[in-house]
Amino acid sequence: MSSTPTPPARPQTPIRSDIGWSTTDRIGVFGRDLVNDLIGKVNLGDMGFLEITGRLPNERESVMFNAISVTLVEHGMTPSAIAARMTYTGAPESMQAAMAAGLLGLGSVFVGSTETSARMLTEAMATRAPGQSLEALAEATVERMARDKQQIPGVGHPIHKPIDPRTPRLFAIAQAQGFHGDYIALLQLIARTGEQRLNRPLPINATGAIGAICCEMGIPWQACRGIAVMSRAVGLIGHLIEESRQPTGRELWRRVDDEASAHMKGRFSGE
Amino acid sequence: MSSTPTPPARPQTPIRSDIGWSTTDRIGVFGRDLVNDLIGKVNLGDMGFLEITGRLPNERESVMFNAISVTLVEHGMTPSAIAARMTYTGAPESMQAAMAAGLLGLGSVFVGSTETSARMLTEAMATRAPGQSLEALAEATVERMARDKQQIPGVGHPIHKPIDPRTPRLFAIAQAQGFHGDYIALLQLIARTGEQRLNRPLPINATGAIGAICCEMGIPWQACRGIAVMSRAVGLIGHLIEESRQPTGRELWRRVDDEASAHMKGRFSGE
Amino acid sequence: MSSTPTPPARPQTPIRSDIGWSTTDRIGVFGRDLVNDLIGKVNLGDMGFLEITGRLPNERESVMFNAISVTLVEHGMTPSAIAARMTYTGAPESMQAAMAAGLLGLGSVFVGSTETSARMLTEAMATRAPGQSLEALAEATVERMARDKQQIPGVGHPIHKPIDPRTPRLFAIAQAQGFHGDYIALLQLIARTGEQRLNRPLPINATGAIGAICCEMGIPWQACRGIAVMSRAVGLIGHLIEESRQPTGRELWRRVDDEASAHMKGRFSGE
Amino acid sequence: MSSTPTPPARPQTPIRSDIGWSTTDRIGVFGRDLVNDLIGKVNLGDMGFLEITGRLPNERESVMFNAISVTLVEHGMTPSAIAARMTYTGAPESMQAAMAAGLLGLGSVFVGSTETSARMLTEAMATRAPGQSLEALAEATVERMARDKQQIPGVGHPIHKPIDPRTPRLFAIAQAQGFHGDYIALLQLIARTGEQRLNRPLPINATGAIGAICCEMGIPWQACRGIAVMSRAVGLIGHLIEESRQPTGRELWRRVDDEASAHMKGRFSGE
Repeated sequence: MSSTPTPPARPQTPIRSDIGWSTTDRIGVFGRDLVNDLIGKVNLGDMGFLEITGRLPNERESVMFNAISVTLVEHGMTPSAIAARMTYTGAPESMQAAMAAGLLGLGSVFVGSTETSARMLTEAMATRAPGQSLEALAEATVERMARDKQQIPGVGHPIHKPIDPRTPRLFAIAQAQGFHGDYIALLQLIARTGEQRLNRPLPINATGAIGAICCEMGIPWQACRGIAVMSRAVGLIGHLIEESRQPTGRELWRRVDDEASAHMKGRFSGE
Repeated sequence: MSSTPTPPARPQTPIRSDIGWSTTDRIGVFGRDLVNDLIGKVNLGDMGFLEITGRLPNERESVMFNAISVTLVEHGMTPSAIAARMTYTGAPESMQAAMAAGLLGLGSVFVGSTETSARMLTEAMATRAPGQSLEALAEATVERMARDKQQIPGVGHPIHKPIDPRTPRLFAIAQAQGFHGDYIALLQLIARTGEQRLNRPLPINATGAIGAICCEMGIPWQACRGIAVMSRAVGLIGHLIEESRQPTGRELWRRVDDEASAHMKGRFSGE
Repeated sequence: MSSTPTPPARPQTPIRSDIGWSTTDRIGVFGRDLVNDLIGKVNLGDMGFLEITGRLPNERESVMFNAISVTLVEHGMTPSAIAARMTYTGAPESMQAAMAAGLLGLGSVFVGSTETSARMLTEAMATRAPGQSLEALAEATVERMARDKQQIPGVGHPIHKPIDPRTPRLFAIAQAQGFHGDYIALLQLIARTGEQRLNRPLPINATGAIGAICCEMGIPWQACRGIAVMSRAVGLIGHLIEESRQPTGRELWRRVDDEASAHMKGRFSGE
Repeated sequence: MSSTPTPPARPQTPIRSDIGWSTTDRIGVFGRDLVNDLIGKVNLGDMGFLEITGRLPNERESVMFNAISVTLVEHGMTPSAIAARMTYTGAPESMQAAMAAGLLGLGSVFVGSTETSARMLTEAMATRAPGQSLEALAEATVERMARDKQQIPGVGHPIHKPIDPRTPRLFAIAQAQGFHGDYIALLQLIARTGEQRLNRPLPINATGAIGAICCEMGIPWQACRGIAVMSRAVGLIGHLIEESRQPTGRELWRRVDDEASAHMKGRFSGE
């Protein structure tokens, strides 16, 4: 038996969530009646908006948020889709694990730029001096990023040139739905300022456009990666269903394994 | 240098996906023009339908599929939501990892019943003899499951009694949209047959209803878990955003740790 | 305000774990003093044995368990390693996520055979009649599996022919350490019976050998996948460190993306 | 048919890994013969060292590395263990998924401090001026961190007071094995400088000690999180095996769900 003193009982703080509840005959989701107010009345994008903001979108928000989500769903044979397919190859009984594997790569390199664009715009706007023009704010922002050796997020694209075709479409919808304000204008000015500074084209890409639109909609930058991850989850199902019918995993495995180790096959160190 | 023989070069089979492509100025998704045909024109649920079936839904399918997805989004403080929140507590910088952790528990116990219901109905219908009534098919199905010591999936609920309120709502939408056919009827007959056999109520629950509706819509049972996982991904964002503002993870950790180890604190084996 | 009845308060059952505790100055792990009994005194494999069985291994068990674990660590460019590398490509800031993605594919196809071998042997031995020879038990087991259309697990290998070189090594260690008993003998007899029945060689592979050795050591079959997953976690670090220095992810992505979508690039349905 | 121009064929770069290979009768791992040089000859910690550094440890390195790994294996009912157990509750058929869920929370909050300690020491030592004393380097490091508003990593502990009992044990092993050099001395000086500056005790904790020891062993800071994640994978098995026999998941779920939603049960917004 030990004489080690144990600490005194810790005071408990309550555990609380304001999202959902259920009783024998009713289910509440963010204060709404799931059965009578949501099922059959709102679409999946609206549910995403409800989860993120705690309220249902109005008509304009519904159109805009669904447009953003739809843009993010499918990106073809990305590293994320390949990771999901390779996981399915080994564990076809766990579709949820394959989807999770696909989501895990949606980090700083790919999906992060929605978040970093929205963050840059939010933080820039928070420093806007009274009477400061957006042009001056864009200059100051690009200046500060250059000084901190940061890349401007949300601009440029390896494939889509000279422009990302999704950007004008998203901005046109933003215009039509009343979400084309100072954040989008600021991002456009930042891109133009960066182009002049670096002397090369820096067209706004889809993740940059979405970051700016989220700011216009009042969605906090911290939620932007979540929107992307949720949308990609929808896209990963398509890849997993296709993989189950028309597999690529074993062929890819064999090719990679053969090529990667060919230079040392049959040899041990020192031989 | 080794004399180990290496196998002859393996013939390659092509790697092929029919989902997406992009060129400098255009993006194709399942044969559709992302920019002009999808963004701003379809909602997120419709994109899910496109990913799963390879084609866009008609109006009736859109309503039904969105109703199913919306039903599956939010379930409150489930083990899945708790796993996501605990993961966020340790790695707040990786929202995608917290969401993935939440999805990983959507396995055989919770979400699996959508899949097993749809599979039971699909397999039963495949064995239907010419002229066999649905009543007889239900009897034969329940008989076979009892013999194989399998539980009937998609019936009963620990909280919702006497019925699951989502089920009549989903079946009403199915009726209105023209998806109330033999699969739903068969599930209802199976539930009734099971009730008589076991002499206790076995109301069809939401996952059972969704499994049957997927069959009515021609969605293969293998895709059912995917629909559930994709919908839950939408719901997990709400929990992660709330966790970031109103944390539960540390309190829960402290409580569990204190209680779980209280009986042995300060004692080593043999003391 | 609702009049919905809420269920009466649920009686609580305690939450209890017998694994670890800590006080201000001491830490217990399975009843051992972490600081004085474990750190610097046992190796990582012994800790794995402690986690799985709740007790420290004796010398023979330590050698055998480390031999098993070491065998399972590294398998080259498997689907699991590729999934981990692709995830690292997108989220290099989250090494834990890349490792998790790699583990998720260790399901029924690859790593499962350790578990299914151990389970087959455990269940077969549980049905052994008094006085029944191992030969007769092997015959009955193969007979039953053929009837249930199940493949014999733990035999055959796509690359290692005519035998898996790890198997004789593991069995030699088992012999030297006193773990070569009825379970290994039964697996050998099952493989021989299967060979005669199918008229083709079915050499015991490494996962089959490990399944049988786990049975000899008294490790329950339910823990076998855990041993494999834990060992592969060790192996995945090597791949992630190599990927960080000598990346393969972007090249692989580009090749797959180019090849997979080449047949439809620039074409929409109906064009 | 589209006239969209597709980009010219991309030049391929080779995909290469120097980790493993296999032929019909042999298996190479980092240039070693798996069957004859590793299985039965080295322990699991040594394999971890091989994966991380590309070479086998000598006797002193083996003792030190195993001591580090063993320290990191078990931490009781952490958020990571709870996430793993909650995942098992929903998907008991996928032990690999439950383990992966547990690993996903090993991010910046908990396990990251091994990495950040090692990084702080590595970067500090890289800036050491010729003839600069370690005392002066510690002063400069603490000064710089205060200026950048960064916390000193690897010091302090919520439970272990006045000191973390693992630290003197690890440093004693480092002393005995010849790994007690400038990095450990620098960390000790940094902690002392921080204590004077903040006027409160800042004892070096286990992750700080391990970060410093990794530096002494020549292990790059980028690998530190990997060592922790691999070791925790070993510890998570114990939790999952215990959970399968003595479940906590459902009870915890019920408690959290009841408490979290009690304040709004049965009420919709506006009622």
